[in-house]
Amino acid sequence: MSAVREALDALRLVDHHCHGTVTGDLGREAFEPLLTEGDAWPGVSPFDSPVGVAVRRHCAPVLDLPRHAPAEEYLARRSGLGWREVQLRFLRASGADVFCVDTGYSPEPLTTPHEVAEAAGGSAYEVVRLESVAESVRAAGVEPDAYADAFRAAALDAVRRPGVVAVKSVAAYRTGFGLDPARPPDAEITEAARHWLLRGGRLDDPVLVRHLLWTAVDLGLPLQLHTGFGDNDIRLHRADPALLTDWLHLTAGTIPVLLLHCWPYQRQAAYLSAVFEQVYLDVGLTLHHVGPARAGAVLAEALEITPFRKLLYSSDAYGVAEFHHLGALAFRQGLAGLLQERVDADELSLPDALRFARWAGRDNALRIYGLNDD
Amino acid sequence: MSAVREALDALRLVDHHCHGTVTGDLGREAFEPLLTEGDAWPGVSPFDSPVGVAVRRHCAPVLDLPRHAPAEEYLARRSGLGWREVQLRFLRASGADVFCVDTGYSPEPLTTPHEVAEAAGGSAYEVVRLESVAESVRAAGVEPDAYADAFRAAALDAVRRPGVVAVKSVAAYRTGFGLDPARPPDAEITEAARHWLLRGGRLDDPVLVRHLLWTAVDLGLPLQLHTGFGDNDIRLHRADPALLTDWLHLTAGTIPVLLLHCWPYQRQAAYLSAVFEQVYLDVGLTLHHVGPARAGAVLAEALEITPFRKLLYSSDAYGVAEFHHLGALAFRQGLAGLLQERVDADELSLPDALRFARWAGRDNALRIYGLNDD
Amino acid sequence: MSAVREALDALRLVDHHCHGTVTGDLGREAFEPLLTEGDAWPGVSPFDSPVGVAVRRHCAPVLDLPRHAPAEEYLARRSGLGWREVQLRFLRASGADVFCVDTGYSPEPLTTPHEVAEAAGGSAYEVVRLESVAESVRAAGVEPDAYADAFRAAALDAVRRPGVVAVKSVAAYRTGFGLDPARPPDAEITEAARHWLLRGGRLDDPVLVRHLLWTAVDLGLPLQLHTGFGDNDIRLHRADPALLTDWLHLTAGTIPVLLLHCWPYQRQAAYLSAVFEQVYLDVGLTLHHVGPARAGAVLAEALEITPFRKLLYSSDAYGVAEFHHLGALAFRQGLAGLLQERVDADELSLPDALRFARWAGRDNALRIYGLNDD
Repeated sequence: MSAVREALDALRLVDHHCHGTVTGDLGREAFEPLLTEGDAWPGVSPFDSPVGVAVRRHCAPVLDLPRHAPAEEYLARRSGLGWREVQLRFLRASGADVFCVDTGYSPEPLTTPHEVAEAAGGSAYEVVRLESVAESVRAAGVEPDAYADAFRAAALDAVRRPGVVAVKSVAAYRTGFGLDPARPPDAEITEAARHWLLRGGRLDDPVLVRHLLWTAVDLGLPLQLHTGFGDNDIRLHRADPALLTDWLHLTAGTIPVLLLHCWPYQRQAAYLSAVFEQVYLDVGLTLHHVGPARAGAVLAEALEITPFRKLLYSSDAYGVAEFHHLGALAFRQGLAGLLQERVDADELSLPDALRFARWAGRDNALRIYGLNDD
Repeated sequence: MSAVREALDALRLVDHHCHGTVTGDLGREAFEPLLTEGDAWPGVSPFDSPVGVAVRRHCAPVLDLPRHAPAEEYLARRSGLGWREVQLRFLRASGADVFCVDTGYSPEPLTTPHEVAEAAGGSAYEVVRLESVAESVRAAGVEPDAYADAFRAAALDAVRRPGVVAVKSVAAYRTGFGLDPARPPDAEITEAARHWLLRGGRLDDPVLVRHLLWTAVDLGLPLQLHTGFGDNDIRLHRADPALLTDWLHLTAGTIPVLLLHCWPYQRQAAYLSAVFEQVYLDVGLTLHHVGPARAGAVLAEALEITPFRKLLYSSDAYGVAEFHHLGALAFRQGLAGLLQERVDADELSLPDALRFARWAGRDNALRIYGLNDD
Repeated sequence: MSAVREALDALRLVDHHCHGTVTGDLGREAFEPLLTEGDAWPGVSPFDSPVGVAVRRHCAPVLDLPRHAPAEEYLARRSGLGWREVQLRFLRASGADVFCVDTGYSPEPLTTPHEVAEAAGGSAYEVVRLESVAESVRAAGVEPDAYADAFRAAALDAVRRPGVVAVKSVAAYRTGFGLDPARPPDAEITEAARHWLLRGGRLDDPVLVRHLLWTAVDLGLPLQLHTGFGDNDIRLHRADPALLTDWLHLTAGTIPVLLLHCWPYQRQAAYLSAVFEQVYLDVGLTLHHVGPARAGAVLAEALEITPFRKLLYSSDAYGVAEFHHLGALAFRQGLAGLLQERVDADELSLPDALRFARWAGRDNALRIYGLNDD
């Protein structure tokens, strides 16, 4: 095993963006859709995709099965062990011990940040999803001209809870990033709120999404932004982070902005991280979907020009604990592979490689979120 | 030779999208422009490009010449053998035995699907290009308010001919994909037809192109869509398949949609194939243009998240039979290379690799087009 | 050392786009920002980025330091030698002997083309930046309805100076390429000039930028266009060269157009070079920013379909002479690596590889700019 890989394997990762896992045992019909950003379709099992191959290869052994175990055996063993044991094994296997958990998306019951931390033997912090806050404000009832203040107050309440270290927006899903970058005037917010409060549904009004992003600036916490890859609710071309450039100019000098996922726009994200002080990135979600076989290639593109202080690790694991393990494994394997290759070619010194690995896997996140390293 | 390569070499491919070849011998002035999506320019021979290098390397031996034979010798030998023998050799060398032939583009006389099949010792099916149908309707004479029905009737006639298995659209060339995704109302179609019928020329009215795509949905056959790379008539950024997302939502549950070529948007296409049940993709055309030296790299990107049930093989060979051979070779070499590499790294089991290779090279196409495997 | 690498190392390069270097010694605060398209930020030293790693690895030995020397030592040695000696060493190390120098951007005093040539022991030519010409016309005072003629006259004067071989535009920075491609009518130019002359500031009016591009066509010299990667003044998605397609159609048959940098749109640029006779490209700037560790990967994408007559070398070195050396090294190492790999795999003959290397590194540029090879 290479020196960089050994160091990365020994490093306790900070997973700066993830979710809880489903609290309950999962049959095939429930498990397969959680494996994919698409769905399980007749004749097209998610097990027959790169992420499914990676699960059978790398997760089966954690459940005491041989590598490449068939899907049926995998599911049977998983059920046999029970979801608590499965979660425990994968979180322990991940080697992460600090988790920033997005608690704002939960169409089915998920483990809490505390439960994630406990299973991993580490600590957890919370990330507040601002769209969920806005939708709670609407649900509680508010007049259009009181919406802006009510949303801000609710967001402040949410982030003042203990353990909250960041906010998140899924503007990429709701409107995309082709928004007017300016802070919207009060009258426009009231007018937009009037329509949205009447119409209902999720927050997807462009003025209110802009207002949400600017409220994040006022809150002063780091802002996580979903960019790129997601489910079919995304218009991928509108989730290109380069579209945020004007907004990044207007908000320079305020809050750190963390571009999540980014694929297939990892080079565009790298550009932003290289030219804006406040911009950081990860290739979470992508790591387990492409699997260890391609994680190195994606990371290599992401790192072509990214300053080594600007890359973070996240799993973006959601629903199944397998992704905590797979994300961490793909990150360690991919990053170690590319750094070691440069060391072997004498393009990089070993001490530098070890330093950059530690920064990306742990220190950058601790620094940005102001966490102590115990 | 690796186990996967051996299996792929033995596999009879289904080429789900190709064209006929020019019926006649070709001098240098006629041959060179067929080698490229550009042209032969003074001092810039298409032989001095990746596809030209690949022709001299991989096609010369099929004509009994040494590898890397000079262009002059290649052309002389090609003429000496005669176009029928050349076509026969390359089609046999391709190892494909089922061909879906787009018969709607033929600025010069081309071999028919039957002739392609006969030369290859296989069977051929037909793909109806809907823009050509529309243009025939105009040529035959029609009133604006009868255009929609006339086009639909002509399309129905065309697809009911024996051997037709799919339709195709070149909307990417005509308008790009940044269209209103909704089915256009009758009045709009009539109005648009009024202008187009007067103005003439090829079908490039946005309303009529939308109508064409929705007519494809009504026909019920799989729809092949040119995306990405093509000649300079394309605006590449408008041929990004991600722009189709809204239309794919509206047409979900109807017809299979096959994204052709895709380069350089193979990752965007992969995303769509992963999140929409009806979406499939290939990297045809690209394979011979980048040549075997880079086909593996392009396929690796295309396969980062594509379910293995969703990748197909096509050559998109047009005009010269060399591309039947080169496309097949680049596909086999590229796909075998990346699958075997994963097997060697124990990221994939050999039985899975062989299964996925067979699906991509043959079974997926047979399944989508409802063809029997004799 | 491989045969292709040996040949490329021996080849005197033509650097078809670069700048001068700062005339004076540089402390850390002055040097670090010149290393990056971003800036030096608290806790984020540009030395801890791919380009910084490459400087410590490949530039330190040119200053008699060990490979991977620490930043402090590097800066101390650099100051100790003095900027003239540093410039001399890096320019000699670059192995380039013909330089086309963009003289239109100089926020700080830079060496002249003559000084660059002298240090390198070669010859230098000048590239006229048209935006600077326009801004000089405004500074000198002109009436709105005389602007068009005055700009044209000033541009003609500028390109008639001895040693001028090309013009350049930074339209990518000012408006991006999503412009109306048509030549603007006189009345529109006058109206736009009226506003700009009043308002002042740099030339960023869309009508005047279009007029500038069309004036380049009238001048008849090759036009260099910044595309893709740059500092945070760029909106990356508007610098995608594919957006130029309509304009390239309208100007076909007039002047050569050289797409500079291109990353991350090197495939889009490659497409344009393959389908438009007048289009050429390089991946300058990118080469030293990604460093030798990734230059081969970027070049491999750029060359997927680019005719070998269409690739050029540039460093786009600005401010520090290190980039002359790093750009040249990354180009030689990257191009040699990918060509030799193809030779070793018998995908390319060695004589062809050597020919293509010489074309890209030297001959293509000599041909386009009409330079003698002494």
